[in-house]
Amino acid sequence: MNGFGAAQHYLDNGRTAKRDGPTLGVLGGLGPAAGVEFMRLFTDGWPATRDQDHPRVILLSEPAIPDRTAALRGTGPDPTPYLSESLAQLAVWGADLLAVVCNTAFAFIDESVAAIPVPVVHTVAAALDAAQVRAPTGAWLLATDGCLISGGYQRHADKRGYPLREPDPGTARRVHECIEMAKAGCLGDATRLFDEVLDGLPDAWPPLLACTELSLIRPLSRHRRPAVDSTQALAAECVRRLQLCGPGEVIGGPVKGMRPRRATVK
Amino acid sequence: MNGFGAAQHYLDNGRTAKRDGPTLGVLGGLGPAAGVEFMRLFTDGWPATRDQDHPRVILLSEPAIPDRTAALRGTGPDPTPYLSESLAQLAVWGADLLAVVCNTAFAFIDESVAAIPVPVVHTVAAALDAAQVRAPTGAWLLATDGCLISGGYQRHADKRGYPLREPDPGTARRVHECIEMAKAGCLGDATRLFDEVLDGLPDAWPPLLACTELSLIRPLSRHRRPAVDSTQALAAECVRRLQLCGPGEVIGGPVKGMRPRRATVK
Repeated sequence: MNGFGAAQHYLDNGRTAKRDGPTLGVLGGLGPAAGVEFMRLFTDGWPATRDQDHPRVILLSEPAIPDRTAALRGTGPDPTPYLSESLAQLAVWGADLLAVVCNTAFAFIDESVAAIPVPVVHTVAAALDAAQVRAPTGAWLLATDGCLISGGYQRHADKRGYPLREPDPGTARRVHECIEMAKAGCLGDATRLFDEVLDGLPDAWPPLLACTELSLIRPLSRHRRPAVDSTQALAAECVRRLQLCGPGEVIGGPVKGMRPRRATVK
Repeated sequence: MNGFGAAQHYLDNGRTAKRDGPTLGVLGGLGPAAGVEFMRLFTDGWPATRDQDHPRVILLSEPAIPDRTAALRGTGPDPTPYLSESLAQLAVWGADLLAVVCNTAFAFIDESVAAIPVPVVHTVAAALDAAQVRAPTGAWLLATDGCLISGGYQRHADKRGYPLREPDPGTARRVHECIEMAKAGCLGDATRLFDEVLDGLPDAWPPLLACTELSLIRPLSRHRRPAVDSTQALAAECVRRLQLCGPGEVIGGPVKGMRPRRATVK
């Protein structure tokens, strides 16, 4: 039996070479660099002294998912089925907890995540949790146009009574431009524009970086003012929930029994 | 039909929300931070001006795979079946090209990768290709103890007539220590030791960083001498091979027809 034949044998017989702990499923590609930055923050935040201390993670980077802001502006296709399909795919592959490395995506899946049989860490909720701790008197909402149009952050903040402030339309437009520059890999230009945005935002409240691309820009900024970072908040929440659970359990989500590691797609 | 029901419907009916291009499957977790650094280099190296220009990638971070050096020293279990199973899993999930973010792993799968029905980018071959260009007169082999014990790099280098030099045993031991420190997240200590190693290596040849953890250390080093980086070489080779191919083709590997995006595990 050669190496691959042996591997197929293990797959066929349901042998698991895996640790008993849970698997994190990550939907990335929205954009790809932000998905990788999430992975870096998650890996860095996990307490470990050797490889084998880390959890199993499956990252599905699916950049073909249609542009979220274009859909919310009414100028592009609806990404909802693509987002749902990708999450279902990660669940079928054996994820016990799901993370979506995007904020704007929750405008489309806010309602449907509850129906997914694997708990989803809600990026907007994780970011607002962090904001309530780090910026209790309020924060500036820096996000994509789509995210602002959807009003999702405001709805979630209002429910908590958390004061979220939207910048004026000109500033909001420049924030969206920063994000598009980062998606194009132009981090230098993105950082210069981001710094101009922060120059103009009153210091009274920290910015809430409610788009995962902004997490790529912030370390390059000359501004040292505190900020609430949605990618960091999402990574920290994933570490917390996976750390708190034993095999087959994920805290804080409706875990309906362990699915087999490799379910069959019918 | 709720969001998840809709997603299941798409899965059931084999609808694909995916771009027509190929999917890169990445086996990471060996260790996890190096797998993420590979993803960063790959994403950064891909020419794109928006999310949708990027390829689909599945990263399986599988840190429970037994320690490769321990197995090669005869003090730990054989990781071969776990490596083969993980690669088979990525193939079943729809990967068209596979990358293993590790050098030492090829001591176990060097023979069997040819039997995998999806082409595998050979990390050692990619690193030696880069070395022949960047360091034509030879390089210092900096690697794990396991990698040195296996003699795999030397065999591949000898076949090419490429002069690869092994450091003395004391230096080799310190390189392995650096790698273990990086795996434990102690990058500061790892960098100080790495700098001492480089201080002692004659300048005549550049170091070949033949362990993916060394790629995490090098950017922090005070040394500015040229080096050949196996993680960078692997990422660049994956970009090259995916760039050169149309839907269903991967250049340089035995692509035996396109597998369905979501094959059924029997």
